[in-house]
Amino acid sequence: MSSQTLIQNVVITPVAFHDMPLLNSVGVHEPFALRSIIEIILPNNVYGLGESYGDSAHLERLQRAASKIKGLAIHNTNAIYRAIVDSLASDSGAGGDGMSGMVTGTSTADKVFSPFEVACLDIQGKLAGVPVSDLLGGRVRDTVQYSAYLFYKWAAHPGEADDEYGAALDPTGLLKQAHKIIDEYGFKAIKLKGGVYPPAQEVEAIKALRTEFPDLPLRLDPNAAWTVETSKWVAKELDGIVEYLEDPAPGIEGMAAVAKEANMPLATNMAVVSFAHLPSSIAQDAVQVVLSDHHFWGGLRKSQGLAAICNTWGMRLSMHSNSHLGISLAAMTHLASATPNLDYACDTHWPWKRRDEDVIVQGALRWHEGGVVVPTAAGLGVELDREKLAKLHQQYLDCGITKRDDTTYMQRFHPEFSNKLPRW
Amino acid sequence: MSSQTLIQNVVITPVAFHDMPLLNSVGVHEPFALRSIIEIILPNNVYGLGESYGDSAHLERLQRAASKIKGLAIHNTNAIYRAIVDSLASDSGAGGDGMSGMVTGTSTADKVFSPFEVACLDIQGKLAGVPVSDLLGGRVRDTVQYSAYLFYKWAAHPGEADDEYGAALDPTGLLKQAHKIIDEYGFKAIKLKGGVYPPAQEVEAIKALRTEFPDLPLRLDPNAAWTVETSKWVAKELDGIVEYLEDPAPGIEGMAAVAKEANMPLATNMAVVSFAHLPSSIAQDAVQVVLSDHHFWGGLRKSQGLAAICNTWGMRLSMHSNSHLGISLAAMTHLASATPNLDYACDTHWPWKRRDEDVIVQGALRWHEGGVVVPTAAGLGVELDREKLAKLHQQYLDCGITKRDDTTYMQRFHPEFSNKLPRW
Repeated sequence: MSSQTLIQNVVITPVAFHDMPLLNSVGVHEPFALRSIIEIILPNNVYGLGESYGDSAHLERLQRAASKIKGLAIHNTNAIYRAIVDSLASDSGAGGDGMSGMVTGTSTADKVFSPFEVACLDIQGKLAGVPVSDLLGGRVRDTVQYSAYLFYKWAAHPGEADDEYGAALDPTGLLKQAHKIIDEYGFKAIKLKGGVYPPAQEVEAIKALRTEFPDLPLRLDPNAAWTVETSKWVAKELDGIVEYLEDPAPGIEGMAAVAKEANMPLATNMAVVSFAHLPSSIAQDAVQVVLSDHHFWGGLRKSQGLAAICNTWGMRLSMHSNSHLGISLAAMTHLASATPNLDYACDTHWPWKRRDEDVIVQGALRWHEGGVVVPTAAGLGVELDREKLAKLHQQYLDCGITKRDDTTYMQRFHPEFSNKLPRW
Repeated sequence: MSSQTLIQNVVITPVAFHDMPLLNSVGVHEPFALRSIIEIILPNNVYGLGESYGDSAHLERLQRAASKIKGLAIHNTNAIYRAIVDSLASDSGAGGDGMSGMVTGTSTADKVFSPFEVACLDIQGKLAGVPVSDLLGGRVRDTVQYSAYLFYKWAAHPGEADDEYGAALDPTGLLKQAHKIIDEYGFKAIKLKGGVYPPAQEVEAIKALRTEFPDLPLRLDPNAAWTVETSKWVAKELDGIVEYLEDPAPGIEGMAAVAKEANMPLATNMAVVSFAHLPSSIAQDAVQVVLSDHHFWGGLRKSQGLAAICNTWGMRLSMHSNSHLGISLAAMTHLASATPNLDYACDTHWPWKRRDEDVIVQGALRWHEGGVVVPTAAGLGVELDREKLAKLHQQYLDCGITKRDDTTYMQRFHPEFSNKLPRW
């Protein structure tokens, strides 16, 4: 083992980028979204990139982990995982996942490990001269499809001028939003983030989308805002209309109860978010689609383990997204390209990010007809733009946000708002 | 993608090596064991090695697959798998696994794919300058432990002079055999292949081994020779004596029935031998230990998927072995070294092979205190000895065996022998 492939340094930079007032079941997106940018650096200055949540609790864990993995071999992600588990020994494991309370019970070690693993694979690919997709078994598709991720939203953050998307508070607003996003990106599937308005209104919105886009698969995701009974009613209303219903009711038991009567598959990124949830969910046939997410499933290789499990039990696979930057989009794209049993267009918040805000050199990730062309350069195929990184880091320091909290932000304007779920 | 990493040629060489008259529930090993040696060759003559079964039905499938994968990228094992599935489209899928009828229902595509995947990983490692273990997440152990694999055996193949091990037809013979093998290799666990004599005799043999080797974990594997009732009786007799009982009764249902009463974990490489068997087995808690085998679980990466499944459902992991040569031992060792949740010493038939018979250059695989030191050279770390390969290929041509058949060979000397299981 050459000392040239031992981790010499790890740099973690928290960044903030502008976000729009997107509504969901627990509140509304704040003006800035947080991420952490991870660089792993070898003695010869070859570096690899990872991206993760930017909440302070998570950042502290990343820093503690970083101090433990220096000197380890860049190819030995097993040893890195072990070191990270050890670094968390005295950790309570709650919070910091940047998901505003909507994903619970995930494995903390898997979340902390993920960006380091991605960075290691980026370097491994660079050293071998092959794209990360090749380290994962090779591309089965040259373009990875993403979905048009629609949100109910305010016209602007309170006190600011309307953003480029404007308001979407009813079907008309959503249709306008859908056209704008699809015109720009060419998406061939639509997902609506629901859980914002009473279910009947959201059912009407989906039906309006069906009429407007008769050929595009549709999904509705209320983030567990409904009771089992309400979920069953929606499932009946949207039978034959949505390709899957995402997290209608809370918990594995809730999903299992809905699944017994729903004709469409149920998908989740809330009830089943770590390997420990799979046995119980599978025993009850609670979900038929898992929305994989390498950020909380322990990185790219562990996400392939999840794919193997889905394949074995006949569950389908889709992909979840939080607000993210280009490193995550590259990692998601490589993973998706090398996962044969990925059955749906992946989710991404990409259109909600300002076009000029990122940390990577522009041009590496090319959108084409609703998908991202899988980079074929070595590693992830993206390079750090240090000027942009510095700018987004300064933005992090200036914005004053250290923890995603959609609920408190909503309550500033609607003090009566409660994030208690299910709501209807 | 460089044309230098496209598969230019594939060479498959059937070989035969001397085997000893080892007894099992379906008969006795023939004088020669068959293997296939797979070389994948790049335009620049870099080559990778794989090893698999040598039965004629399997060889034909390997040849058909080989013709379909030329021109594919060495890193794209996903595409290679797909090509192999296609090559099997008109195949019935039965036979050829070199396991003399003791393993059924395995996925044929996974078996055919496995040696090609290993060869691809060997090349990928060579090109990247890293050992295969590094392509699998890195070594968690520098030496992989194997078990002393004891067999009841005749003193020699009929008509030949006694072999170096001589007879083992009772506890005394087994103890002598155990001492010889352990003295040479330093094994720290013992497995007895049973299913040969009535259960009470084999229970006595295990108890004699316990007395003789009080500190070594013990296992007994009758290859499904017992009914559920007999298995329960053995489980009671060996409670606290064996670390696991391997395939006592046939089938997932049989194992599940035994597991309900057995105090020790039950292990299998017969009831659960492909991903399709896992859901039913897990639902019934039929087995608590899976004996992984990359030769039939679809290669090294798919075996890691199996490991992820075992980890998720709290099953333990051990490793199965057929008669094999050095390429397989290298592949098994790399896989085992990179599998954190491998809980037991792996099985190997290595001691039963003549020391001078192999296809690899001597010296790459070093035994140390019951284990194989994980090679750290690039790729698998073993190179082909073409003279030896030619010799074992000639032996294949000369020996006249084209299909492993322990039963017919046994019946030549004991016409009344039946391979019907369970026997007791």
